[in-house]
Amino acid sequence: MAWFRNLIQVSATTKPFIKPRNKKNPFPFPITQLFGLAPFSSEAINEAPQVNECSNLGPTKPGEKPRVVVLGTGWAGSRLMKGLDPKIYDIVCVSPRNHMVFTPLLASTCVGTLEFRSVAEPVGRIQPAISKEPGSYFFLSKCTSIDTDDHVVQCETITDGVRTLDPWKFKISYDKLVIALGAEALTFGIHGVKDNAIFLREVHHAQEIRRKLLLNLMLSDVPGISEEEKSRLLHCVVVGGGPTGVEFSGELSDFIMKDVRLRYAHVKDYIHVTLIEANEILSSFDVRLRRYATNQLTKSGVRLVRGTVKDVKAQKIILNDGTEVPYGLLVWSTGVGPSTFVKSLELPKAPAGRIGIDEWLRVPSVQDVYAIGDCSGFLESTGKQVLPALAQVAERQGKYLAELLNKIGTTGGGHANCAQDIDYGNPFEYRHLGSMASVGSYKALVDLRQSKEGKGLSLAGFFSWFIWRSAYLTRVVSWRNRFYVAINWATTFVFGRDISRI
Amino acid sequence: MAWFRNLIQVSATTKPFIKPRNKKNPFPFPITQLFGLAPFSSEAINEAPQVNECSNLGPTKPGEKPRVVVLGTGWAGSRLMKGLDPKIYDIVCVSPRNHMVFTPLLASTCVGTLEFRSVAEPVGRIQPAISKEPGSYFFLSKCTSIDTDDHVVQCETITDGVRTLDPWKFKISYDKLVIALGAEALTFGIHGVKDNAIFLREVHHAQEIRRKLLLNLMLSDVPGISEEEKSRLLHCVVVGGGPTGVEFSGELSDFIMKDVRLRYAHVKDYIHVTLIEANEILSSFDVRLRRYATNQLTKSGVRLVRGTVKDVKAQKIILNDGTEVPYGLLVWSTGVGPSTFVKSLELPKAPAGRIGIDEWLRVPSVQDVYAIGDCSGFLESTGKQVLPALAQVAERQGKYLAELLNKIGTTGGGHANCAQDIDYGNPFEYRHLGSMASVGSYKALVDLRQSKEGKGLSLAGFFSWFIWRSAYLTRVVSWRNRFYVAINWATTFVFGRDISRI
Repeated sequence: MAWFRNLIQVSATTKPFIKPRNKKNPFPFPITQLFGLAPFSSEAINEAPQVNECSNLGPTKPGEKPRVVVLGTGWAGSRLMKGLDPKIYDIVCVSPRNHMVFTPLLASTCVGTLEFRSVAEPVGRIQPAISKEPGSYFFLSKCTSIDTDDHVVQCETITDGVRTLDPWKFKISYDKLVIALGAEALTFGIHGVKDNAIFLREVHHAQEIRRKLLLNLMLSDVPGISEEEKSRLLHCVVVGGGPTGVEFSGELSDFIMKDVRLRYAHVKDYIHVTLIEANEILSSFDVRLRRYATNQLTKSGVRLVRGTVKDVKAQKIILNDGTEVPYGLLVWSTGVGPSTFVKSLELPKAPAGRIGIDEWLRVPSVQDVYAIGDCSGFLESTGKQVLPALAQVAERQGKYLAELLNKIGTTGGGHANCAQDIDYGNPFEYRHLGSMASVGSYKALVDLRQSKEGKGLSLAGFFSWFIWRSAYLTRVVSWRNRFYVAINWATTFVFGRDISRI
Repeated sequence: MAWFRNLIQVSATTKPFIKPRNKKNPFPFPITQLFGLAPFSSEAINEAPQVNECSNLGPTKPGEKPRVVVLGTGWAGSRLMKGLDPKIYDIVCVSPRNHMVFTPLLASTCVGTLEFRSVAEPVGRIQPAISKEPGSYFFLSKCTSIDTDDHVVQCETITDGVRTLDPWKFKISYDKLVIALGAEALTFGIHGVKDNAIFLREVHHAQEIRRKLLLNLMLSDVPGISEEEKSRLLHCVVVGGGPTGVEFSGELSDFIMKDVRLRYAHVKDYIHVTLIEANEILSSFDVRLRRYATNQLTKSGVRLVRGTVKDVKAQKIILNDGTEVPYGLLVWSTGVGPSTFVKSLELPKAPAGRIGIDEWLRVPSVQDVYAIGDCSGFLESTGKQVLPALAQVAERQGKYLAELLNKIGTTGGGHANCAQDIDYGNPFEYRHLGSMASVGSYKALVDLRQSKEGKGLSLAGFFSWFIWRSAYLTRVVSWRNRFYVAINWATTFVFGRDISRI
């Protein structure tokens, strides 16, 4: 018997509570069907999905819109989806997160300069078609295998944190597949990094850093704690002197100098930041900028240490020469490399294990597969160098590929195995626009040289910091987030950073 | 050998990296002491805290400032701390969260109308002394026992989520103790509530609801999922028709009507809200307002069901008459009762198990102990009724007690066992200012009657909603949060609610 009919009875026997405004059943199908009482079984679900039977994600027919499947919602995948024309293609996006992270500002969220939501852009706002159009979808899932012969990807839902749901599998046929899966943080096989260090690549990493930092600040104030333990808890160690590590160190020292002194006055003398780097900090920047950054960070109290990490324990790092460095918070940002899934794909590979692509970002030897962003690299046969793993590269590739796919679609090559004779036009060319990094205390570096050896303008100081902020403010994807980033910055300036640990 | 000296050597052997700006050791104590290499042992810490030896939290001496220990950072405790004069008292606050939650607006954060941080106020901003003054502290801990004879509380640190730290215990001597521990959500002993339902009392509850709601919206869109399962996932059930349950249902229906239709168009017909209440919704409100709320909620698509829950399973509720109600999200708000810790205290008790207090909010039979807010209630001997568990009551009691304690402090009764002969002045009198509740769609109820039977103004509609918003905007504690709440409301109005699941 249907529970809903029962409920109305229950109400009717006492005082009528439900006043049906319109007589029509609020559900578009019979109530008995609505909540089947058979227990939900994950096995049943896992068996269920036969692409052609229970979903409209089977191979598209000639008269239908062709389907682009995008794996990933990073810079590359998001920029691609933004540029794809939903009138030409159905767009299906598969990713374990439903938003793009504005990574260059992520370091600022760890200490409360910016709020987490200000740097996260929902995919549905980047490409509204995926939440509206009948054939376009976003699936909170990960891709588990790619069948390039049949033009099918196998996916599995993400259900983190919800105990009562088991993940289930489903298949999607594609006309065009764009692999934009990004990269994973490198640990160089060092023991204990994954267990004890926090990376800085996702919003939940920044949340974890903020919670741990505030917890340590509060714990170190508890009576009975030894001086040694207090200093350990409040020792923040950053491993890796790239832009992320330097910007995070700068933000942390700003937080210490402006907020900890005021709001955690009892322990302010115990908190310290150490940045460990095996080579040079900011090695891609101009030498004068590097020197400026070194001076600026040292002045703000960040200790710069040249060293290589050998082992990471729960409360201390061991360096190659045996030195032990106790820590309370350990942030790891030593660059990125291909993920296990990308490594496992049977596709041509570029140097360093990335998916190999040609000048038009196609994966050769298979039909209709493209790869962009950090997961891809030019094949040696193209004679081009593998581009650096930068947001700038990923974004430019996404934009280029969106235009290319739109062009292919309009010239009749949108469906699977139909693009062989299309004129692909100009190949992708990357022109580096320059690099920026903030170093704290309203100071930043702006390096406008086109390559490490090239010549060009390089600036450092308050004016650069102003350029840094303005540039990011105009580049944050939506007006909503632009507005919030500006408001967050203004609030931090006036009221200080938020220190509630929620 | 000290690791820091080692590190400088490492740097010196390659290119010098650290440029000591000033020769002086950046640490205020010898480096060898800074990071003792002995492993941190929780046993050692648990043994360590001898109140008088390693902390300055032992009994205060006659010449020193007396110490008020406040347990809790809810409405009562926070308002008390705001009012206490740090020139008269050292203030020590013990609570498992370092912020006050502006509970009436918590329901709005679950669907992204407001941001989580806009409704959380750090204690350090409410009473800056606790982060600055040498004898005032905030401890992220819970109180585990109270020794009223010796004027000592025993506490234990909170270290949720951090694997490598064990909690440790410490003691604090008090001159005045204020118990403001609040209450716990009532489950009436119904099996499965704690495991499967989400309460709505803390920021992390709101975060959990938001994550689960967005997860279910996305999962229900996955191919291969049955109609039954889709409807189950998107069935949001609220148990309890008090202001929290009603406001949450209203917010949810606003979210569905404005944002889900736009951003989750594929599944918009499957999402429904059911509010289950055993008696009347909003039973403390005027009967006309109740009728208005019932109509308004029904119009917004909320199904109001009169029923009593018997059992809660992972994916369905079972009502008393055997009806099974499948759900994807279950929010439980059926009122509050005393916590296990409050029940365990050997203090006089008021009806319903609250800590018994006299007209001056003192706990009789013991010296220097006060109890305010939801954890306390007038003793039968006072001839007064136990006040309802409302923010309004808690806030008024906090304000009264702050003034009373300041007065006691200035007239020489601040120290332990010194307040027997003080004139306590007027007893605490509660005057109900009225109740408010929003019901969604820019509508709210305002009931200005002084009691359930009394006469007075009662309003419902858009104007009430305007009063509701304005009243809360002026009552949010800090200017920072007032500003953020206003900005959040404006942004939601212009851009819609945020749907990134972070």
